[in-house]
Amino acid sequence: MQPKVLAMAMAGIGLSLAAGTTQAQETFEWKLVTSWPKNFPGVGQGPERLAKLVEEMSDGRLQIEVFGAGQLVPGFEVFDAVSEGTAEIGHSASYYWKGKAPAAQFFAAVPFGMNAQEMNAWLHYGGGLELWNELYDDFGVDVMAAGASGVQMGGWYNKEINSVDDLDGLKMRMPGLGGEVMGRMGVAIVNMPGGEIFTSLQSGAIDATEWIGPYNDLAFGLHQAADYYYYPGWHEPTVMFEAIVNEEAMASLPADLQAILRTAVRDVNQDVLDEYTARNNDALQTLIDEHDVELRRLPDDVLAEAKKISADVVAELAESSDMAGKIYDSYRAFQDKVVNYHAISEQAYYNARNPEGDTTQ
Amino acid sequence: MQPKVLAMAMAGIGLSLAAGTTQAQETFEWKLVTSWPKNFPGVGQGPERLAKLVEEMSDGRLQIEVFGAGQLVPGFEVFDAVSEGTAEIGHSASYYWKGKAPAAQFFAAVPFGMNAQEMNAWLHYGGGLELWNELYDDFGVDVMAAGASGVQMGGWYNKEINSVDDLDGLKMRMPGLGGEVMGRMGVAIVNMPGGEIFTSLQSGAIDATEWIGPYNDLAFGLHQAADYYYYPGWHEPTVMFEAIVNEEAMASLPADLQAILRTAVRDVNQDVLDEYTARNNDALQTLIDEHDVELRRLPDDVLAEAKKISADVVAELAESSDMAGKIYDSYRAFQDKVVNYHAISEQAYYNARNPEGDTTQ
Repeated sequence: MQPKVLAMAMAGIGLSLAAGTTQAQETFEWKLVTSWPKNFPGVGQGPERLAKLVEEMSDGRLQIEVFGAGQLVPGFEVFDAVSEGTAEIGHSASYYWKGKAPAAQFFAAVPFGMNAQEMNAWLHYGGGLELWNELYDDFGVDVMAAGASGVQMGGWYNKEINSVDDLDGLKMRMPGLGGEVMGRMGVAIVNMPGGEIFTSLQSGAIDATEWIGPYNDLAFGLHQAADYYYYPGWHEPTVMFEAIVNEEAMASLPADLQAILRTAVRDVNQDVLDEYTARNNDALQTLIDEHDVELRRLPDDVLAEAKKISADVVAELAESSDMAGKIYDSYRAFQDKVVNYHAISEQAYYNARNPEGDTTQ
Repeated sequence: MQPKVLAMAMAGIGLSLAAGTTQAQETFEWKLVTSWPKNFPGVGQGPERLAKLVEEMSDGRLQIEVFGAGQLVPGFEVFDAVSEGTAEIGHSASYYWKGKAPAAQFFAAVPFGMNAQEMNAWLHYGGGLELWNELYDDFGVDVMAAGASGVQMGGWYNKEINSVDDLDGLKMRMPGLGGEVMGRMGVAIVNMPGGEIFTSLQSGAIDATEWIGPYNDLAFGLHQAADYYYYPGWHEPTVMFEAIVNEEAMASLPADLQAILRTAVRDVNQDVLDEYTARNNDALQTLIDEHDVELRRLPDDVLAEAKKISADVVAELAESSDMAGKIYDSYRAFQDKVVNYHAISEQAYYNARNPEGDTTQ
């Protein structure tokens, strides 16, 4: 081989090598922390799917290891862990961070607020996601919507509720804005970690609790500790789950891996709701048919009073800071319009298809 | 440099080069054909977004050029074009292919059938997508859900409809299963391409037409040709759009690009519905406030009769082939359960949040 030819060959190889190995060799290993037990049904499947999709799409260049609550950090320390870079990414729900930023609650669940379809429209085409990121920007965290529960159940009760009066003095576990509303309706709100709910309900330390919906509630065994299962979950028309990413970690990824991560999260965002929508059906039937659960609708006066008080509670949250007010204005304006439109589309259709409403009781 | 060292260096470079350039050099250029005009609002944005996401995630290794209806093939020849490999991928709706496979209609829109949230749950967690792929397998085509319209509007009418009797002899453009139902209620169904609808309605050649929903209908100008805008769209509780991919083209992609394509489609699947949900609100208000459109609910007797006849029409479709029967059984079983569950969740919540229903008229 002539020296000149060799030099040309090497130069050629060198160029190809540089172009080729940039992609092949730069591998990222990330930790994902969650607020759910590892492999929890429904919401806990979201981060597992995310890790799998990202690995497949990146051909292994971005590897994400998923940690359940307590495996790397406790479930309620996910936000701090991502903000500080202990983990690059987290999967959780924004109402857990109300101590840091009360306005975060708008992005998880608002009593008598928007359901999953409406929240997704607001977040992706109504400016909601930009506001959510603005709120988290102070903490060095990027955020995306990463799953929804759909309309939840109203909760498990050990006595029948026939009017607002029956709520007086009831000891109930209900966190967040919904708990604040119930408190103003005479309920004694008790806070406790998820792990204590079952025994507290069984021992009579509490009379009632809300949890999620049939799929998770059946797995949790709550039908063994309470007789009455109430609907609808006015306090959580959906929970919107979140994927939070450390901003520096995100910026360290090349553009293609950033796009892969964002698109995988959007896939998971729909997939979690699909799973709940499909699995809640069967779980509800099992609860009724095999476990003799008494399904009850919350009385009209309870729903009407809860709606009235919810408006007050949410408006007070809006006054907690300028940013909370800004988010509330956007949320409220969008909700007013979408409720108006869904009155003649989704709501009108549900009622035309099933004019009898609930026929299970 | 010693010969042995040079050989080792070349071997090392050779290995890296092989590993590196496999990814960097294998580039795919695909054509995407659609049944919509290029850049059509809503559904037409889906394929544009798909192409962009795939390019970003693949770092340009998979490039997709989007053709509007008629640019490469006519809108109703998208399926053939993908099946034959003229284009690698298409974006359309399955009811257009009822001439090839009547059962395809189950995957687009079923009168009094499932809405967008329910369809997605059935497709992704109820076996629906597997059946859809089984149906298209004979044509060498893979299929994925790629967007939803949400509950559509009932249509534009040039006269008021106060009972089933008012439908008698009405000339209306309504394609598909919904048109078959209306035909059995006394309507004279007229078929015509989208481009002829406006002038036919304005000239009185037809008295009524359905289209999509406020966002598309406003852009189409239908309020200039009809006075009354009816709801709800019982005939199309959503349209589910589809992404169809030539099986050989799919198989030619490496695994990471296949995953990228599938995940991008899933992103688009939610994104199209988000856009409709957000934009329909404003368009409806513009139609009412600026164009004096008369919004009307279809009378109870029309909805009840349409529901009854729809059940017959759908059951007849199920008898058209073994495969149609198999799909119907799966669809029907899932719908029965999800209607039961949504009666106490989504439907009950809509009615608790907005007990007055429609307040726009």
